[in-house]
Amino acid sequence: MIGMINLVDAFWFSLESCAWNLLEPHTALLAVDPIERSEFFERQDRLASALKDAGVDAFIAEPSASTAYYANISDTFELSERPFLVILDKEAQFSYLVPTFEAGRIANLDMIYKDKKVIAWAEEESPYEVLATATGFSKIMIDEHTRYMIAAGLQKAGVEVVPMSETIQSLRAVKTEAEIMILRGINSYTLQLIRSIQSCLSLDVTQETLTTVGHNLFKRGGVGNGFWAIVLFGDQAAYPHGGKHGKTLSEGEFVLMDIGSELHGYGSDVTRTFLPNGVTVSDDLMAVWDTVHKAQSEGFNRMWANETCSDVDAASRSPVKAAGYGPYYTHRLGHGLGLEMHEHPYLNGANTEKLKVGEVVTNEPGIYVTTEQAAEVGRKVGFGVRLEDPILVTEEGGEPLTGHRASSPWNP
Amino acid sequence: MIGMINLVDAFWFSLESCAWNLLEPHTALLAVDPIERSEFFERQDRLASALKDAGVDAFIAEPSASTAYYANISDTFELSERPFLVILDKEAQFSYLVPTFEAGRIANLDMIYKDKKVIAWAEEESPYEVLATATGFSKIMIDEHTRYMIAAGLQKAGVEVVPMSETIQSLRAVKTEAEIMILRGINSYTLQLIRSIQSCLSLDVTQETLTTVGHNLFKRGGVGNGFWAIVLFGDQAAYPHGGKHGKTLSEGEFVLMDIGSELHGYGSDVTRTFLPNGVTVSDDLMAVWDTVHKAQSEGFNRMWANETCSDVDAASRSPVKAAGYGPYYTHRLGHGLGLEMHEHPYLNGANTEKLKVGEVVTNEPGIYVTTEQAAEVGRKVGFGVRLEDPILVTEEGGEPLTGHRASSPWNP
Repeated sequence: MIGMINLVDAFWFSLESCAWNLLEPHTALLAVDPIERSEFFERQDRLASALKDAGVDAFIAEPSASTAYYANISDTFELSERPFLVILDKEAQFSYLVPTFEAGRIANLDMIYKDKKVIAWAEEESPYEVLATATGFSKIMIDEHTRYMIAAGLQKAGVEVVPMSETIQSLRAVKTEAEIMILRGINSYTLQLIRSIQSCLSLDVTQETLTTVGHNLFKRGGVGNGFWAIVLFGDQAAYPHGGKHGKTLSEGEFVLMDIGSELHGYGSDVTRTFLPNGVTVSDDLMAVWDTVHKAQSEGFNRMWANETCSDVDAASRSPVKAAGYGPYYTHRLGHGLGLEMHEHPYLNGANTEKLKVGEVVTNEPGIYVTTEQAAEVGRKVGFGVRLEDPILVTEEGGEPLTGHRASSPWNP
Repeated sequence: MIGMINLVDAFWFSLESCAWNLLEPHTALLAVDPIERSEFFERQDRLASALKDAGVDAFIAEPSASTAYYANISDTFELSERPFLVILDKEAQFSYLVPTFEAGRIANLDMIYKDKKVIAWAEEESPYEVLATATGFSKIMIDEHTRYMIAAGLQKAGVEVVPMSETIQSLRAVKTEAEIMILRGINSYTLQLIRSIQSCLSLDVTQETLTTVGHNLFKRGGVGNGFWAIVLFGDQAAYPHGGKHGKTLSEGEFVLMDIGSELHGYGSDVTRTFLPNGVTVSDDLMAVWDTVHKAQSEGFNRMWANETCSDVDAASRSPVKAAGYGPYYTHRLGHGLGLEMHEHPYLNGANTEKLKVGEVVTNEPGIYVTTEQAAEVGRKVGFGVRLEDPILVTEEGGEPLTGHRASSPWNP
């Protein structure tokens, strides 16, 4: 087995150094500033104004993407049975409800606010009654990721609780110039990383080696935190979350690489289905690739302001249905991308929201046929093809934040 | 620095092998069976009956301690924006709502049920409307840890949503014989682990070394999964979540060790404040230890059926107030222990629930004075003392599930 390990290592090192030579010039894409403090204040003001319009006293959230967005309080803060709630009211006042027991530790978080009010509850008090009495709120809007016990506690303390409105959700869904620059930086880098791997790839590599090399290339760029990857070869790509350990790449098989990381908290999410240079697949698999590319083009064509999410999703299905693969396009077209890898708006058949200028959403159609299903489409072996670019919604159409659309399996 | 590393290693190995010699005979404590499948069916039946009494159609939860308890679906299942909901209705029917996209993966979970109904929602459907239509539920009870978006979605689909009642909470809070045997096993082992470390301990060890040795001793017993620890020396023990890296144990300082792990999913949570054999602290620190021990005795004396949680908490404060340390007993007396490390019932000044036979709760008073506060109590250096045993509530009083109460810092 020693020989085997050395062989894998040799693949890994030579692939990685070849790819890094191509990728290194692109690290300049990552030289983007984080969000300035002044932008956090603007976010708080926009939220306050929207709360006033909605007739709601305040927005309340547990540590989550929302608190990261409005006050730089990360969603990695561990939740306990003792509520710690972040509050922004309709006058843009920042407060938080904290167990007295934890007040010291929480005061040390790098929160961003103009001024703060701390509402501490002692172990012998109901946190919800303390909050209701201290604030006098009669109606609050609660973040969707907050636990139901918080909503129930506030209701019991006499506070009316309403869910996030589409307007409040869209405050975070619509990105500012600074956010778009970060998203463009990390997503363009991610695509260049995939392209550098494709250029250097040869057969017989394992799925795990590609994952390791992908991780190392993000780390070399200084953006290893937040790394994630799905790397699937051939028939494995029909199982979106599975993948046989140790599977190697063979002639006639596609590589599906869905990969991303984070820059200043903002995510990347890019998928390419590609081939090593000089390697081919059967004509019918190439036709599947072309069909997915057409489906993605339909997505691009419709991703502009005021287009209904479900209509964009439907448009991307037309070429797939026409090619006879309708039932094998098993997921929605895409999802919002920002501080969360999946966030509003969702591009699926049930969502009648309209796209807004400045939203960033993924455009990721796919066709998946397992080996068990292969006979249904006249094949012996399963396959999976997906192409994904996060796009910026503009008045004129969708702009890929990767900077480049795939044009063939050898030009991903 | 090489010499330093060797010195630390020498401590670690000699302490660990000494402690393991003492602890190994106690691994028999861990030879307890997991919960049988028939007990899961009994849980489902008890829940169904309570739902009927409450006039509610069903109980709905995301993967959580509740789903682990009722259907063996672990709370480690990763939540996404696509709801996966576990449903137990008032006829004890088990169902789940699942994205069609994920149905295959979820069907492979080792769920426990008599028979199941699968309600799948497609990407172009509202999961909440699909659930409402498929079940016809008009009123459901929702688990406290479920995200608010789920409750809001169900309400929008016309289903009335109510929070968990105290009765439903107490179904899980009151333990069966099989659960008590598991909790007794892991908590007794945890105490013996602390006692074995105390017997072998000498000065100059670091907090990190004790944590490592603790982890290794759990692993050697086969219960390394779920390990956690807080190890604090001297003034560090006044900061419940802090701890200076590299701090070594000196003459005149207590060791506070709050440690636990898991057996068959059930947690242990034991704290001792102790000294190496032959080492002493000042008389006033010894008096603090005795005061905390008295406070814990008050807890034991009141932890029986029908005692109000807030009264037990108050009773444990009396000796602490009498000794002049009232403001430095900064947290509640305790919390329930089971599949969650902290669960219902909570023993704090606000909880007017009554204890029930079969509940397992921690009894953990403490006194904490930081170095900044030390002058207030006539000392120069801060300190922290806590004693904690999980107890079983019986008709006659509290029974320590550790099998042994501390009687001095040298007999923890």
